[in-house]
Amino acid sequence: MAYLNDNYLKLKAGYLFPEIARRVRVFCEQYPDAAKRLIRCGIGDVTEPLPQAAVAALHKAVDEMASRDSFKGYGPEQGYDWLRSAIAHHDFRARGLDVADDEIFVSDGSKCDCGNILDILGHQNRLAISDPVYPVYVDTNVMAGHTGDADASGAYAGLIYLPCTPANGFIPEPPAEHADVIYLCSPNNPTGASASRPQLEAWVRYALQHQSVILYDAAYEAYISDPAIPHSIYEIPGARDCAIEFRSFSKNGGFTGTRCAFTVVPKSLLATTASGERKPLHPLWLRRTTTKFNGVSYIVQRAAEALYSPEGRSQTRALIDHYMGNARILTAGARAAGLTTFGGVNAPYIWVQCPPGLSSWQAFDKILGEANVVITPGSGFGSKGEGFFRVSAFNSRANAEEVARRLQSLSW
Amino acid sequence: MAYLNDNYLKLKAGYLFPEIARRVRVFCEQYPDAAKRLIRCGIGDVTEPLPQAAVAALHKAVDEMASRDSFKGYGPEQGYDWLRSAIAHHDFRARGLDVADDEIFVSDGSKCDCGNILDILGHQNRLAISDPVYPVYVDTNVMAGHTGDADASGAYAGLIYLPCTPANGFIPEPPAEHADVIYLCSPNNPTGASASRPQLEAWVRYALQHQSVILYDAAYEAYISDPAIPHSIYEIPGARDCAIEFRSFSKNGGFTGTRCAFTVVPKSLLATTASGERKPLHPLWLRRTTTKFNGVSYIVQRAAEALYSPEGRSQTRALIDHYMGNARILTAGARAAGLTTFGGVNAPYIWVQCPPGLSSWQAFDKILGEANVVITPGSGFGSKGEGFFRVSAFNSRANAEEVARRLQSLSW
Repeated sequence: MAYLNDNYLKLKAGYLFPEIARRVRVFCEQYPDAAKRLIRCGIGDVTEPLPQAAVAALHKAVDEMASRDSFKGYGPEQGYDWLRSAIAHHDFRARGLDVADDEIFVSDGSKCDCGNILDILGHQNRLAISDPVYPVYVDTNVMAGHTGDADASGAYAGLIYLPCTPANGFIPEPPAEHADVIYLCSPNNPTGASASRPQLEAWVRYALQHQSVILYDAAYEAYISDPAIPHSIYEIPGARDCAIEFRSFSKNGGFTGTRCAFTVVPKSLLATTASGERKPLHPLWLRRTTTKFNGVSYIVQRAAEALYSPEGRSQTRALIDHYMGNARILTAGARAAGLTTFGGVNAPYIWVQCPPGLSSWQAFDKILGEANVVITPGSGFGSKGEGFFRVSAFNSRANAEEVARRLQSLSW
Repeated sequence: MAYLNDNYLKLKAGYLFPEIARRVRVFCEQYPDAAKRLIRCGIGDVTEPLPQAAVAALHKAVDEMASRDSFKGYGPEQGYDWLRSAIAHHDFRARGLDVADDEIFVSDGSKCDCGNILDILGHQNRLAISDPVYPVYVDTNVMAGHTGDADASGAYAGLIYLPCTPANGFIPEPPAEHADVIYLCSPNNPTGASASRPQLEAWVRYALQHQSVILYDAAYEAYISDPAIPHSIYEIPGARDCAIEFRSFSKNGGFTGTRCAFTVVPKSLLATTASGERKPLHPLWLRRTTTKFNGVSYIVQRAAEALYSPEGRSQTRALIDHYMGNARILTAGARAAGLTTFGGVNAPYIWVQCPPGLSSWQAFDKILGEANVVITPGSGFGSKGEGFFRVSAFNSRANAEEVARRLQSLSW
């Protein structure tokens, strides 16, 4: 009798985005005229075309696949050396950070990596997770059996939730209690907050002291404009001994539909066996990658490499500037409407406080119904997200300007 | 104190292909002249360019990504509807098999799927696995903690090994004992054997009786030439209630470096909860896919779709005919050399019995040293693979002919 994984049955039925899609569909059926002016600022998906450098590299690589002499079959599961080297050089060593080529593992997405990393960690770890939070961190742990059931607020037993509020600038401090594995995301999805150097130093200190592992999601690092904000956890001394970093080409190169990302696992990072020995995680992640993955499409790896060329870097910069221009317009619009906003400076997300008396979903329904704009209700990211909503800056300039106007036209 | 997953420490250090690569490297350093005439028939990697239909579709899709109006961001994690529909139609419904579009889950590889499927199954399942076997089935279960330690022969405690020998034509019968989850691979990697309809009927009968789940790896189905051999487990009545099927574009469309595959999870397939309820696995796999995966690259999905066009199908057919022509030449060569061969008729692998007195690795060293040809030692696939080696037909025609000649030139 084949058994299923009962932990899946603990998952809350309605994942955030399907529920948003359902409400939008119902609205569009009821109000077909309003539906025509709908603007989506919900899901964090890019809207602008791929940089020309990536497009040219894709065409070239496709042509290579069309000829026997240049055809590529299986590549190294952990990524081609030329891409790992380009990443380690440009994203780390050129910034003075000590990361070796073979500490880079190329993958098809940070979402995948954030989930898959649990494969190499023990089930006995105690986990600390921000609230609000990118739901994947929580759900993958529920699936792996690392939690109990969810309570009425959606919080799962067994997790240490770290509240992110206006009082702490949405960046949690290390808890008084012990955590073995800590998820940090900076610049943050959904709040748009970014961790300062002293804040990251406090976390690295905590992790070294507790022999914890920090899972550092830096998928939005390219959006950092403030020179004082670290782009990588490895800017903090000691982080190589306590942190894994996740990066992605989704939001800088616009690769959400093209699929390429990477994970940094320093060779000096140790974890503990059941019998108390300390061993490096790098060989485990290498083994996991070679056994359960077959590498990213060759043509896509060539496109990712092209983002590091001089043209690729300037085109990527232009893309980010475009989205951050939207963020400024949306922030100004929301503030002119009398709303209190956070984020939107070092991140493409604006975290807006709901006006008094409105819940996150009530704000969602009002903005959909009256402004015909789709946002994301903060409560979908955790109980501490209640009373907020997220506005994504991924859009055309015209749409961002129109959304800013419409937010001001509402009577709050 | 972060714990690692101790199960990884049970894995045998030397994975097959790294050890082959090491011996080839040592040989080439010692004998640089012989190295120049080296021919690789080891790893099962395709060698011929992508079909033109796929190349054209890739270029077109890249152009779409270069323009705002046709740009694609995140797609459905489980694959675009047009691809799921093309697969379900051509591979199943056109052959009279009842598979719905939404039972198809598009992925980046069968290796990934074969490992990831364990996520939705319980840890208490008792597993049956062929010997010899594709190592990924075993290793992913070791990593997930479903086995004890390995013994001297490399067999892991807690697994039910199903011996595949000349006596059973390398297709195992269902065991007398109970198994909850069964891995079957047909046409088989590494033996090249393919399961007949009566053999699959016996397995489906067993699985229905035991409420087991069959994990059916049909990555090589396109190589079946015998019209009596089933291409899909779903050709067997009852299989929709007991089987998950894995398919790939790696070996038919030559996508080993392009990356696209799919898994079929019938909605009628149930498994058992810890409390004894029967529930469908389909929603669990959907949830797993949407939470831990972000879909295959849009451009790659368009290339996979193009394989189903009339041109794509005829070009794919020509690719397979090419490799199967190699298989005939290699089989004839090995037999003319006095060797006993199996497989190579409905599969691109020829499973060759070592001459008396030679172990698999001794045969490997002899063929490398004297014929300068790389094959795969059978013992790397399990203890019952000892005394055999695998010859891959993935090569150019000239190389296949040359290998056939060299095998005959050896004194066995």
